[in-house]
Amino acid sequence: MSTNVLRTEEGWWVVRDERAVRVETKAVTTAELLADRAAVEEAAVSGETGTPVADLAALPPVTTPCRVVAQMVNYRSHARDSGFTGEIPPTFFRKASGSVSGPHDCVVKPAHVKFLDYEVELGLVMGAPVPVGTVVAERDLPAYVAGLVLTNDVSARDIQLTKSQFYESKSYPTFTPTGPYLALLEPEDFPHLPDLRLRLSVNGSPRQDRTLADMIVRPAEALTLLARFQHLDPGDLLLTGTPGGTALKAPPKPVEKIGALLPPALKWKAFFNSQARNPHYLHEGDVITATIATPDGRIDLGEQRTPVRDAR
Amino acid sequence: MSTNVLRTEEGWWVVRDERAVRVETKAVTTAELLADRAAVEEAAVSGETGTPVADLAALPPVTTPCRVVAQMVNYRSHARDSGFTGEIPPTFFRKASGSVSGPHDCVVKPAHVKFLDYEVELGLVMGAPVPVGTVVAERDLPAYVAGLVLTNDVSARDIQLTKSQFYESKSYPTFTPTGPYLALLEPEDFPHLPDLRLRLSVNGSPRQDRTLADMIVRPAEALTLLARFQHLDPGDLLLTGTPGGTALKAPPKPVEKIGALLPPALKWKAFFNSQARNPHYLHEGDVITATIATPDGRIDLGEQRTPVRDAR
Repeated sequence: MSTNVLRTEEGWWVVRDERAVRVETKAVTTAELLADRAAVEEAAVSGETGTPVADLAALPPVTTPCRVVAQMVNYRSHARDSGFTGEIPPTFFRKASGSVSGPHDCVVKPAHVKFLDYEVELGLVMGAPVPVGTVVAERDLPAYVAGLVLTNDVSARDIQLTKSQFYESKSYPTFTPTGPYLALLEPEDFPHLPDLRLRLSVNGSPRQDRTLADMIVRPAEALTLLARFQHLDPGDLLLTGTPGGTALKAPPKPVEKIGALLPPALKWKAFFNSQARNPHYLHEGDVITATIATPDGRIDLGEQRTPVRDAR
Repeated sequence: MSTNVLRTEEGWWVVRDERAVRVETKAVTTAELLADRAAVEEAAVSGETGTPVADLAALPPVTTPCRVVAQMVNYRSHARDSGFTGEIPPTFFRKASGSVSGPHDCVVKPAHVKFLDYEVELGLVMGAPVPVGTVVAERDLPAYVAGLVLTNDVSARDIQLTKSQFYESKSYPTFTPTGPYLALLEPEDFPHLPDLRLRLSVNGSPRQDRTLADMIVRPAEALTLLARFQHLDPGDLLLTGTPGGTALKAPPKPVEKIGALLPPALKWKAFFNSQARNPHYLHEGDVITATIATPDGRIDLGEQRTPVRDAR
C-alpha cells in the first residue's frame, strides 16, 4: 500500500483519509526525506488524529533545484495528436526545475506566449542514484523509484514549435505544477502502475483521460535509456509523457507535407493562423484540474487545481 | 588583464607565463572559488616561482553538478553549414553536466554512435545569480559573467537529428571537454570579446577558425533571453554556439525539400547513407586540438587536446 506524503511551509506530513500527521524529521529536501523513511513510517502508524488536509497549503512535494527530465511523445494517443506516424525514437528533454510550482498555484502565462497548453503526466521520483550505464529491469524498478507525483508539463506551443528545442517552452516558472502528494510506493504497488488513470479537465470539461496501458516506453525501459547518458540522484524527477487530448493537434498529413516545403517562418505563420481558431488553448481565468489514481484507490496522487493567469 | 585559473586534484592554481602558483583557498567548487577572489588575487601577485604548468594534470575548471545550457545555431557560418536560411529564433538547450570532462581527457564514442562531431565553443561562467526576468545590458555583463572557458560541444549527429531534441546527443560522458583555463575577466577585458578567435583542428588539420564577429546573439542578449525562463547561479556554464566547419553539412536545399516529403525513417536513412561518405566525423585515434584567444593574448583560454576512443 502506498503512503501519501504532503509538504507545507511547516514541513512534511503523512496523509490518510483526508487527515495529515506531521513527520518528525529534519529533512528539508525531498532527497533528505527519502533518506529518513523511518520518520515517515512512524507518522504513518501513529495513532494521532492529525490535521484536516483541507486546512493545509500544499507545496510541491519535489523540492528544487533537482534534475527534471521529460519523455517526448510517450503515449500512442498523443503520438496521433502530434502527427507522428511509424517509428518514434524514445527521446528525452530537460525542463528547468525552477518551473516546478505547487498543486494549487496559478499557472502564469508570459506576455509573449499566445498558445499555452496542458499535459497531465505521471512523474517518477528517484529514490537512489542511477549511474550512467545502469540497466533497470522491471523487477528492479522499486530499487530506483521511490514514488510518484502528479505533474502538468505546461507548454508554450508557439515557443516550442518555432524553436524546435522544447527546453524554453516548458521551463517558464509555474510550468510544472507538481503534487499534491508524493506517493511513496512499496514493491507490491509497482505491478499496479499500468492501472493508473490520468485525467485532466479545463473549466470542468474533460480533455485528457487515459491509463498507462497507452504508454509507449515504460518506466524501467525509460530509466535504462536515460541512463545511457544521464546520471540521476535521489529526489530527481522524470516526467513520463502525456496522453492524447492536448489543445495542440497536428495539421492533416497532406497539409503538413506542403507546409514542409515552405520557408519555416511562413510555415509557422500559416500553422498558428489555423491554431488561432482552436478554442482549447489556455487563457486567464481558466482552471485546470487533474488527477492520477488507480480505480481501487491503491495509488492516488490527489487532485491538482491550478488557475491560469496572465503575467503582470 | 584576465587571470587564468587552473584546477588539479590538489586544488586551484593561478597561471602566468607557463608557471602555476597554488591558490590558498578552501574552495572546492567553481562557485566557491569565485566567492574567494581575494585568494586568487593573492596568488596572482605573489612572488613565488611556482610549478611548470606542463607538470600539472588539468581537471575541468568548471566543477559539476552545475547547469550547462547551450545556444543552438549562433554563428552565421554554422547556420549556413546547417542549412538554415532566413530568421533563426534564438534557442537554448540543456546538456547534462555529467558530460563535462578535462581538457586532455579522451572523448569516448559510445558503441551505438556512428557520426561523432566536434563544436568548439566559448563558455561563459556565471559569477552572480541571474534571476528570472533579469535584463543584462552590455555594460552590466561583468556583473554576471565571472570568466570564460574553452569548451567542445561534442555531438552524436545520428542521435541528435533522428531524435530532434539535442539533449541526449550532447550529454554523454566526455561530450563537454572544458578548459584548461578559467579566464577570470576584469571589466576592461569585456570590450575585447569580439576579437576572440576560436580554432579547432583534427589530427592537425584545421576545421573551424572564426572570431566572435561571426556570432549572432551576443552574451548580454543571450543571458537576457535565457533569463526569460531560466535562473542561473555562480559556477553555471553557458555555451555560446559553434562557428562553421563541423563535419555535419546540411544537404543542398532541393534535396532537403524532397527529403521533407519522405517518412522520417526513410529521410534519415538516406541522409546518413550520404554522410557515410563524409570523412570528417571523428573516429578512434583522432586527436582534437582547440584554442580560443585574442590575437594580442590579452585573453587566452589555453589549448585543449583530446584524443577520441571507442567505448570499451
